Amino acid sequence: MGEAREFDVVVLGAGAVGENVADRASRTGLDVAVVEAALVGGECSYWACMPSKALLRPGDALAAARAVPGADTAVTGQVDVSAVLARRDEVASHWDDGGQVAWVEGAGLTLLRGHARFTGPRRLVVTTADGDVTVTARHAVVVATGSVAVVPPALRDVRTWTSREATSAHTVPRRLAVVGGGVVATEMATAFADLGSEVTVLVRGDRLLPAAEAFAGEAVLTSLVDRGVRVALGAQVVSSSRDDDGVHLVVEHSLGTDDGAGDAAPQTLTVDEVLAATGRRPATEDLGLEALGLRAGDALPVDDALQVQGVEGGWLFAAGDVTGRTATTHQGKYDARVVGDVIAARFDPRTGPDDAGSAAGVPRGLSRSSEAHAGDWSRFRATADHAAVPQVVFTRPQVAWVGRTEADARAAGLDVEVVGYELGDLAGATVTAADYRGRAQIVVDRARDVVVGATFVGPDVADMLHAATVAVVGEVPLSRLWHAVPSYPTLSEVWLRLLESAGR
Amino acid sequence: MGEAREFDVVVLGAGAVGENVADRASRTGLDVAVVEAALVGGECSYWACMPSKALLRPGDALAAARAVPGADTAVTGQVDVSAVLARRDEVASHWDDGGQVAWVEGAGLTLLRGHARFTGPRRLVVTTADGDVTVTARHAVVVATGSVAVVPPALRDVRTWTSREATSAHTVPRRLAVVGGGVVATEMATAFADLGSEVTVLVRGDRLLPAAEAFAGEAVLTSLVDRGVRVALGAQVVSSSRDDDGVHLVVEHSLGTDDGAGDAAPQTLTVDEVLAATGRRPATEDLGLEALGLRAGDALPVDDALQVQGVEGGWLFAAGDVTGRTATTHQGKYDARVVGDVIAARFDPRTGPDDAGSAAGVPRGLSRSSEAHAGDWSRFRATADHAAVPQVVFTRPQVAWVGRTEADARAAGLDVEVVGYELGDLAGATVTAADYRGRAQIVVDRARDVVVGATFVGPDVADMLHAATVAVVGEVPLSRLWHAVPSYPTLSEVWLRLLESAGR
Repeated sequence: MGEAREFDVVVLGAGAVGENVADRASRTGLDVAVVEAALVGGECSYWACMPSKALLRPGDALAAARAVPGADTAVTGQVDVSAVLARRDEVASHWDDGGQVAWVEGAGLTLLRGHARFTGPRRLVVTTADGDVTVTARHAVVVATGSVAVVPPALRDVRTWTSREATSAHTVPRRLAVVGGGVVATEMATAFADLGSEVTVLVRGDRLLPAAEAFAGEAVLTSLVDRGVRVALGAQVVSSSRDDDGVHLVVEHSLGTDDGAGDAAPQTLTVDEVLAATGRRPATEDLGLEALGLRAGDALPVDDALQVQGVEGGWLFAAGDVTGRTATTHQGKYDARVVGDVIAARFDPRTGPDDAGSAAGVPRGLSRSSEAHAGDWSRFRATADHAAVPQVVFTRPQVAWVGRTEADARAAGLDVEVVGYELGDLAGATVTAADYRGRAQIVVDRARDVVVGATFVGPDVADMLHAATVAVVGEVPLSRLWHAVPSYPTLSEVWLRLLESAGR
Repeated sequence: MGEAREFDVVVLGAGAVGENVADRASRTGLDVAVVEAALVGGECSYWACMPSKALLRPGDALAAARAVPGADTAVTGQVDVSAVLARRDEVASHWDDGGQVAWVEGAGLTLLRGHARFTGPRRLVVTTADGDVTVTARHAVVVATGSVAVVPPALRDVRTWTSREATSAHTVPRRLAVVGGGVVATEMATAFADLGSEVTVLVRGDRLLPAAEAFAGEAVLTSLVDRGVRVALGAQVVSSSRDDDGVHLVVEHSLGTDDGAGDAAPQTLTVDEVLAATGRRPATEDLGLEALGLRAGDALPVDDALQVQGVEGGWLFAAGDVTGRTATTHQGKYDARVVGDVIAARFDPRTGPDDAGSAAGVPRGLSRSSEAHAGDWSRFRATADHAAVPQVVFTRPQVAWVGRTEADARAAGLDVEVVGYELGDLAGATVTAADYRGRAQIVVDRARDVVVGATFVGPDVADMLHAATVAVVGEVPLSRLWHAVPSYPTLSEVWLRLLESAGR
């Protein structure tokens, strides 16, 4: 072995999650290292949230202007593809992580560029360009290596795009197949339709955005079809091949096709590129987790303090996609703040080590006074992960939801009241667009008189969501929300309509 | 006297406020009449909120598209003035209240078209096209006649525009002077600049939007000037005249002018129209209030149940601009819901009249059990009027605030922490526009650890406000807001930055 280094805390992965863990963990003076084999800043900055929104925003802005009488005639063109791609390159910092590296170093963290594997408790080997480094963590290791796209077996024989290739594409395929019906699939179908691709979406299930309320996926489907995108539900790719003509996908249609309902005979679709947007798995395959008695490839199960379950000594934590607990940058960062704060408090060098509950075999409890005083909603518990997770999909219409869907709430045994309202009936919608279409819905827990879930579908609803998130997390009763007056004529006035519909 | 009619409740004014009072008051079966001399639907529908937003939205949508690389080149024109005005006409229902009348009748209310004057307690004469009608209210009268624009003495000799003429204009003046610096002034300066007018704003004070945080008015001023609008602070019109060349305004510049700082010599400005946007006064001049011992022209002072103070018998209520308590449609409607619910409960015909506290000289207390159980935040108290009023200004940038400004909070004796963040530094801003500029600020009451005020300035911030309103009204502690995760990359992520800046 080569060099040996020791830190108080070692964080694996320098994406948004790892960066936040490291930053907050270091706040009590702990010496923190971050290990990253790829770009500092992670998936979100270079191959997900940021470039995808950069691809979507120009079409969105033009669609908004085209929908306003008096503005519509001033919009004479389409998006400028090369300008969109150039802007996307800028937003993705040209895939150069210099700015992020400078931030890491400015924050007093040590960056180790390489790939880390566990060799035992609190011990890793980091393979760098200059050789292996043995790294020991005095107190804690946090795994924040994220996730990788899953490509289904039927597509493994052709080179498919994943979200990475789609968000960083430098050419626009004439014909694009999108396999999947979730966030990546619907956003990229929208973006590439804007950019001029002939897009076909192949969805195995019977709806788009299956994690959201059904009306959300229906609105996105209608809008995609209106814009010339073909969407096939109940469509499964059974095999694929690539030749000089492109990629040939053999597709079984369990829900029938446009050409004949119920026709289950496989059809062949030929396209220039295929985007596999069929889910992700935790990036835990090559971390040496076997040395800790864990199974490579599995998610790392954590408690609400983000401590990994089933590992002795209370030193191993995980946050972000790797836990299987969250799947978005913002929620991963939330978990990162929690675990960073837990580590900073528990191993606070100013107060000396905390031995309480550290006996072998007993996962260390949260025993610092600052933690012990904390209730469920303390900053040492990622309580919001359970029933207050927000999600925004930048499709057209946008889809935004937080907390429980109606089905989730009923499955959780709540006495549920569901209230919806068409956004197009609002005065604010009338002035926003000539034909604004959208819908809001809240799910109310009657027993507590609080909102436990909310969904917004429509143009420009992304920033309407946070009011719902505050209401859900703040457990603000409907009787109090009645006094939270939305300004007229904004779209937020839907809150008044929802409360009126709920009989307030 | 001609016809005589009797109702349980009589509402004066069928604007948004009167309509809401009547609708809610009638819910327990009370027989409610609404008296309106002008259009049913009121100022907001025809001459304020709605047409003004219709004038502003096209320019806003084009500005948003022009700010996005990849979309900007598709915007080749300006707003189409005649299309904008035609759309405004539609949004203002062509000043035809047929739809609103149908709503009133469908709600089971009686509409009396005419002008009402009090002749004594619970008694009015309504002058209609068919003659006078004597109207008696068995239980309550609610004054919701709104407000009228104040035109300063120096402008009374020329026919000026008020908000009515500006929002309903069918031609665009080549040169427009806007006198005032508040919401109407800044919105109409923005709209008429879009429509091609050469606009000069004359502001007596030293800032725009004086009710908001100073940085809000500064941002709007900068943006107006960037767009070619002349803005003169410290400018007072001392006299005016109109001839064939237009309107000549003699203006004193107490803060100096572009041509020479400190030069106080009056200058003459010649324009084609002048918009007097210098405030409003309660529409109480011609209501016969003298018959009740009140003074015509004054605001009607009310308690939190919207009962008019200083009138015996507990039968007189007021809501909306006429109270001097609120100045926006949404907050007037909130008061309307409160007073409607108070009346519906107090005079509930299903339970018989409530005599408690009705002795002469003692304003009737809220004594129904449903009201008696209610705390400060019950639906029978307009508690939010005191420190949780939202306001959105549809300028470019938009300005939105709720609750207390920093100065208000300090004046109220609170131990204040003020935290601000530049919206342009957010990832969400980067994808929204190439050069997004804006700012958010929260005012925190340290003692209670709650947000008591928030201000947002920037493109598309209007619907960001409601999250703050829910936080203020819900009194959600910052420690809990920490768990309300904003979605990445929305503009709402500013909440995370604000909380981080506040040291959470």
